Amino acid sequence: MPPSPRPADPAAASGNSHALDDALRQRAARVVPGGMTGHLNAARLPPGYPQFFERGRGCHLWDVDGREFIDFMCSWGPNLLGHHHPEVEAAAARQAALGDCLNGPTARFVELAERLVGRIAHADWVMFQKNGTDATTVCATIARAATGRRKILVAQGAYHGSAPWCTPAPAGITPEDRAHFATYRYNDVASLEAAAAAAGSDLAGIFASAFKHDLGIDQELPSPVFARRARELCDAAGAALILDEVRAGYRLHPAGSWEPLGIRPDLSAWSKAIANGYALAAVTGVDALRDAATRIFTTGSFWAGGVAMAAALATSEVAEREDLVGHLERVGRRFRQGIAAQAASHGLAVRQSGPVQLPLILFDADPAFEMGSLFTAEALARGVYLHPKHNMFLSLAHTEADIDQALAATDDAFAVVAARHGR
Amino acid sequence: MPPSPRPADPAAASGNSHALDDALRQRAARVVPGGMTGHLNAARLPPGYPQFFERGRGCHLWDVDGREFIDFMCSWGPNLLGHHHPEVEAAAARQAALGDCLNGPTARFVELAERLVGRIAHADWVMFQKNGTDATTVCATIARAATGRRKILVAQGAYHGSAPWCTPAPAGITPEDRAHFATYRYNDVASLEAAAAAAGSDLAGIFASAFKHDLGIDQELPSPVFARRARELCDAAGAALILDEVRAGYRLHPAGSWEPLGIRPDLSAWSKAIANGYALAAVTGVDALRDAATRIFTTGSFWAGGVAMAAALATSEVAEREDLVGHLERVGRRFRQGIAAQAASHGLAVRQSGPVQLPLILFDADPAFEMGSLFTAEALARGVYLHPKHNMFLSLAHTEADIDQALAATDDAFAVVAARHGR
Repeated sequence: MPPSPRPADPAAASGNSHALDDALRQRAARVVPGGMTGHLNAARLPPGYPQFFERGRGCHLWDVDGREFIDFMCSWGPNLLGHHHPEVEAAAARQAALGDCLNGPTARFVELAERLVGRIAHADWVMFQKNGTDATTVCATIARAATGRRKILVAQGAYHGSAPWCTPAPAGITPEDRAHFATYRYNDVASLEAAAAAAGSDLAGIFASAFKHDLGIDQELPSPVFARRARELCDAAGAALILDEVRAGYRLHPAGSWEPLGIRPDLSAWSKAIANGYALAAVTGVDALRDAATRIFTTGSFWAGGVAMAAALATSEVAEREDLVGHLERVGRRFRQGIAAQAASHGLAVRQSGPVQLPLILFDADPAFEMGSLFTAEALARGVYLHPKHNMFLSLAHTEADIDQALAATDDAFAVVAARHGR
Repeated sequence: MPPSPRPADPAAASGNSHALDDALRQRAARVVPGGMTGHLNAARLPPGYPQFFERGRGCHLWDVDGREFIDFMCSWGPNLLGHHHPEVEAAAARQAALGDCLNGPTARFVELAERLVGRIAHADWVMFQKNGTDATTVCATIARAATGRRKILVAQGAYHGSAPWCTPAPAGITPEDRAHFATYRYNDVASLEAAAAAAGSDLAGIFASAFKHDLGIDQELPSPVFARRARELCDAAGAALILDEVRAGYRLHPAGSWEPLGIRPDLSAWSKAIANGYALAAVTGVDALRDAATRIFTTGSFWAGGVAMAAALATSEVAEREDLVGHLERVGRRFRQGIAAQAASHGLAVRQSGPVQLPLILFDADPAFEMGSLFTAEALARGVYLHPKHNMFLSLAHTEADIDQALAATDDAFAVVAARHGR
């Protein structure tokens, strides 16, 4: 039994106050709508979570009040190898000493494109952007340019970014922004077939996330029959199969997340982890779509910046050399097994789903995430940064000792949940 | 008379070959559609221009073959204070040593938002993004969310980014992407009034560039009557006046490009120069739109990154302390006067338009830009990087000596044009 089943006061447990975070929030509320926008808004998290951070090192974070956390969000994906990975930082610094944003790309642009074409199984070519949303939007545009058609299928509830065509919030969006995006249910072959049939000869492409990672529900790996049918439907229609690798990319398989299934997409969208936190996105594609990719016009002031590309080169080298995927599977399994044993020991029904590299912990009979929020708030107060309903991320910097230290905290957190919600 | 009116061989003039650039282009052609995408594609420039760059320092660039140029494109805008400005680099390095992309923003986020609210006359709040296109898209979305209406007016030929709603290329775009974007002619009050009348009660917003800077035609500053009428039409309709500052921002006026006109927008989109080359964009807005800005959902993996914000803070401080605008006006005037005198002395009819801080040099009776291309290719061969039909950019790093050295090259370049095209 844990020593302290009483709810910890998140502010007091670590011996620090939230004073500096609170002060920054008050200042931010005056000069930023809602004080913070987007997915990093702490208002989307249980009470006690910090909004503002001071620094990161490896898989550890410090908030502005000096509280230290073992981090299981990894900046919501970008932190793949650990903050301040020495090889990535050295590569970025070497390029920064020369130049970043110039009148054209640097040699790193070619070197990185070659490396990705060599690494990603389906890739014959690469285009670079800055945001994951840029990459998914470019994929849709290329599919339409290649086919001269309009209809794009996306899975219900899937997140493909926050442009008007894909943002989950309706404010400011017109019906026309989504006029040609139709939906199917992930892993549901019949619904996919029906959506493709409805699109008919106007089908330009089918989006699929690398796996189903929708907010607040169990994750699902793609079923082989679903992945194969998506490929077949695209082949039959001459449409593009588009894999959204923004969230999962690099963590499941070095050559592409659907390689274990033997299914290769025509286009993939990448971002988040590919430069270990430096801002970069990429689209990889097959030769049949090269001409269409040449005909579209999409660009950005910073898309050719050399520093993020130097970081991405080093990130890819380190990930492959260190068997990143194997490491993530090992520490992910250790974490999942530990969580499962703890939940059982506390008599709590907890579901863990999806790949162990991207953990998700949901409580049974917890529709409003009350147990999940209590659990994660209690873990946070004990120095472990979890998310109550969004998938989490592991990194190369997570050691077995980090996992074990985190599990010591989650055991206490489960005890608090059991004391309040258990039978 | 210039000493060398013979056309210079761009490859030989500097004593260097294009060997390394050529080799990189050949490699890039295999792994990137068209070898390069977007506005930095050297295929859009006259022969002789390098595609790949090695480094930058101040307003000087070196291509991968070691050729040095005095640069008049400034990375197409981002290079505001000069490459490797010591204060910007120091601020970025300090933040990088702590952390960049964390689980939330750093204190730099608040400090920069406060600084921009203090600096930009119309701004009550700020949101941050990465691309200029992100910022313009967010402006349109906020205008629609605030009004519950759909129609947005944009000037014919104006560039507001490369998302489906605004990219200049039609490939991959559906009619619905632009269903609610209608056009008017910049500085043409009657056409603006007609477009607003056509939108009627569905008018959500009016976009205007800080000045008219369309590709390949004379630039135009906004006429006071046009700017005032845009403001009046928005006020009458309850619509948002949206100023696109992505290209001009910081170079015309520290508090906003329309401040000299006495017209304040409701929303402004910023990017390019605001972090001196670090990837950052921002939307500034008025209090009346704060609630709508809070209700939309738009985000990106790297949007809260601290390093670009630290760079932006330093950029703003240096620009204000050093009277950036005054400096750009001085060197810009010197360049414009020099070019005008040289063209006259060579009997060439040349038009320079728009603000001197963003030079544009067009030849009369040169519809295919043959004279412009020859002129800029000859200048390039003499170490000056100009653009034949896109506005150029000056920086704080451009000294009078740089301008004079550039003018020595352009005098020779004009001589070549006069010898081939003059009467």
